Amino acid sequence: MNGGSDSRNLLATRLLNALGPHAVKVSREDRAAYSYDASNDEALPAAVVIPADTRETCIAVRIANACGEPIIARGAGTGLCGGAVPIRGGLVISFSRMNRLLSLDVANRRARVQPGLVNLALSQATLPDGLFFGPDPSSQKISTLGGNTSTNAGGPHALSYGSMNAHVLGLEFVDEDGEVRQASLDDPGYDLVGIQVGAEGTLGILTAIELRLLRVPPAVRVAIAAFPDVESASAAVSEIIASGIIPTALEIMDRVITQAVEAHYHTGFPTDAGAVLLIEIAGLPDDVAAFESTIGLLIHRYGALSWRVASDASERAALWASRKNAAAAVGRLAPNYYIQDATVPRTKLPQAMRTVGEIARTYRLPVGNVFHAGDGNLHPLLLFDRRLQRQVDAVHAAGTEILQACIELGGTISGEHGIGFEKRESLTYVFSPEDLAAMGRLREALDPARMFNPDKIFPSGASCGEVRPNLGFTAKPEAGNTWI
Amino acid sequence: MNGGSDSRNLLATRLLNALGPHAVKVSREDRAAYSYDASNDEALPAAVVIPADTRETCIAVRIANACGEPIIARGAGTGLCGGAVPIRGGLVISFSRMNRLLSLDVANRRARVQPGLVNLALSQATLPDGLFFGPDPSSQKISTLGGNTSTNAGGPHALSYGSMNAHVLGLEFVDEDGEVRQASLDDPGYDLVGIQVGAEGTLGILTAIELRLLRVPPAVRVAIAAFPDVESASAAVSEIIASGIIPTALEIMDRVITQAVEAHYHTGFPTDAGAVLLIEIAGLPDDVAAFESTIGLLIHRYGALSWRVASDASERAALWASRKNAAAAVGRLAPNYYIQDATVPRTKLPQAMRTVGEIARTYRLPVGNVFHAGDGNLHPLLLFDRRLQRQVDAVHAAGTEILQACIELGGTISGEHGIGFEKRESLTYVFSPEDLAAMGRLREALDPARMFNPDKIFPSGASCGEVRPNLGFTAKPEAGNTWI
Repeated sequence: MNGGSDSRNLLATRLLNALGPHAVKVSREDRAAYSYDASNDEALPAAVVIPADTRETCIAVRIANACGEPIIARGAGTGLCGGAVPIRGGLVISFSRMNRLLSLDVANRRARVQPGLVNLALSQATLPDGLFFGPDPSSQKISTLGGNTSTNAGGPHALSYGSMNAHVLGLEFVDEDGEVRQASLDDPGYDLVGIQVGAEGTLGILTAIELRLLRVPPAVRVAIAAFPDVESASAAVSEIIASGIIPTALEIMDRVITQAVEAHYHTGFPTDAGAVLLIEIAGLPDDVAAFESTIGLLIHRYGALSWRVASDASERAALWASRKNAAAAVGRLAPNYYIQDATVPRTKLPQAMRTVGEIARTYRLPVGNVFHAGDGNLHPLLLFDRRLQRQVDAVHAAGTEILQACIELGGTISGEHGIGFEKRESLTYVFSPEDLAAMGRLREALDPARMFNPDKIFPSGASCGEVRPNLGFTAKPEAGNTWI
Repeated sequence: MNGGSDSRNLLATRLLNALGPHAVKVSREDRAAYSYDASNDEALPAAVVIPADTRETCIAVRIANACGEPIIARGAGTGLCGGAVPIRGGLVISFSRMNRLLSLDVANRRARVQPGLVNLALSQATLPDGLFFGPDPSSQKISTLGGNTSTNAGGPHALSYGSMNAHVLGLEFVDEDGEVRQASLDDPGYDLVGIQVGAEGTLGILTAIELRLLRVPPAVRVAIAAFPDVESASAAVSEIIASGIIPTALEIMDRVITQAVEAHYHTGFPTDAGAVLLIEIAGLPDDVAAFESTIGLLIHRYGALSWRVASDASERAALWASRKNAAAAVGRLAPNYYIQDATVPRTKLPQAMRTVGEIARTYRLPVGNVFHAGDGNLHPLLLFDRRLQRQVDAVHAAGTEILQACIELGGTISGEHGIGFEKRESLTYVFSPEDLAAMGRLREALDPARMFNPDKIFPSGASCGEVRPNLGFTAKPEAGNTWI
């Protein structure tokens, strides 16, 4: 596919001629800014297009196709698995200019957005009408709805609202011929919307997204409960949900995390507890009060040491800010950390947390746990110093063991971060060669030329045309720009 | 693909040898029972297999594949569009023996079922644990969860709970090689679950389905409101939802329907009103009471003439039974009826209902309307006598005009009944040739030999290998076995 330096020069020249220097970036400095995301991967694109609209996107796709260069869509570059990195060069299309709310239909609670619109900006625009957007990855202040859709992102509120696949009602995308296609969940025939959600830009380039909006609940309560350890907090989470209450969020932080967060933000997290459970409940005022007392009883039965309800909106916001910036706070504990993203059935949480602890101890690595407990979505942060090869090797081995342990417990290798480049080899842990072949054929059905993000999701051995070996270990280069 | 009488005899012989006469039906009488569904289509299969388990299903698929005969999965045969009819013969696989609840996970609210389990039987089995299954097509007493999944069925409660695609968490299916495949919504990579929901058995044969269960709400209220006409009832529906309340069901019946239902069931529907709106609200007792008073105010602002709340569970059940058997009751009004299934955006309901009335008047056909108003899912019943060719032609033309009018209002050609054989030519109203080609390639990706239900969903011109012309007009042969 990749046609060498001649085709790359031709790509740059043709794009510049068609779209002009405002939309097309070809200097080495400009391209370097699009060579990485929040993962450890890095590769220079041959050219970058920042289209103003769908029409310019189509033109860029047609030119890249004609030049035989791959096309990689990019949102805010907050992905943790290398999904937006142009592994073999090619064209990066950045959606930073296509960031508008296209339409808002309050009566039917739908919004149509461009893929570059920042997640939080959508809720900010719809709040005056009493509506908001459900999925809230911790990166929501900067990550885009296009990237969220392509990774099937979740966030703390995925517990009650579901991940992106429960909120995308329709899509506009540019196909391999550079033609604009529309798909709606209401369409008869095969579900062309669902297959694009989580496809990480391998089946076309999204240019508009139709999203479901939710009503702002009349009452919200955020509380934190201290537990002696992560296992007891996990058991309480499982029991809360089994009792029939689904809080809007159930997040656990262990002592490593709460101490780092408290040192950073001074929110008042109990740092002597083994774990802190953050609970959000929302609904009508009477329900919220009823749920609150039921949960209060339940958590004490599971060994809660203390229980504090935020008194007002600013205290709620402070608790959430601490939780959402936990990864940044951990930066003070070690030069580097490595975040794993895996899931287990909710009822297996206590066992999974014990296993994560054992694996970390075996490899003598400090571990912090901050995770979407209600979803069974783990995010162990393994702390290390990447200048010490022994620690790097240990982190790599421990991360793999954690993934495998989660699979043994009935879980899988990604909860919300996607597969990208970094985790593609791990796909063989959960899929048979026949499953991978079927997905490969689905990919071919929508992208026969394998133009769209060709090195992503699938193991290198499972697809033809891979030109670059797995880059190997993928520790985070630095903390603070990571979103869990 | 179809290998003629030799391959059909070979199919029967090999199936009998492999699975025995208990599982394999080859007599003309037996095959005739599997030659039709609730549509007007009819065609004899070469053989019928009633497998006891997944293993027998795999054997049947392999033998049919080796004989070059198509394979058609069949649930209860309640489909209205010919989806289970073996248009060009081949093997029908009936799931009447694979009708077990395989496992129930109360804590995680999931059930794993065989495809032949009847929809209502699942809720009956899980009610002792306080759980039920959300989608409730009016056929739920006899239609199967395999058929519900394959048509992405909805029902009155789709309004609040969503259609099947919001409830299927995982699938086991048999692929074209007769191999068993597992897929889960939690899997990374492409969504192999979503693509099977609504695929009408064209991408493999479902042998197990993992379903989400819901908690039984603590309080339920069912009320009926009388309105002067369907337009005012529709406007009230749109306003109720815009107010922020989502009832669990919002169903409208016009006077034609309520009079037929009342004559049949004597439930106490107000037969002098132009339309009756059935409203169900569910939740905590306080919410239900609050919603009830808000809705009471709203509907009177939109012209409600009266308003009656069912006093107990048996009255609620009676109101629902009348609604769900409305189509059967209409059997007394005319020798035949033709049900259209189409959708419009909820806010376009009043306009759509006016248009349906105008079209029916133009063609001088009595029309009854009973529909999922909250979803914008129309079900006009055109009444006629199929012995009069003039009326048959009029129904055909009116049905097509209704579909086209709904599309013009931003809706589509199927709300919940699927496409099957009867509506496949209408797919060209909503999809471009490029869209149809992309879906054709998706089909090829999972069923390269086009073994699975080959004559369904897609227009005959859009796919190769079609051997039989469109059967043309598809009026219902008789009333009473139809589910809307």
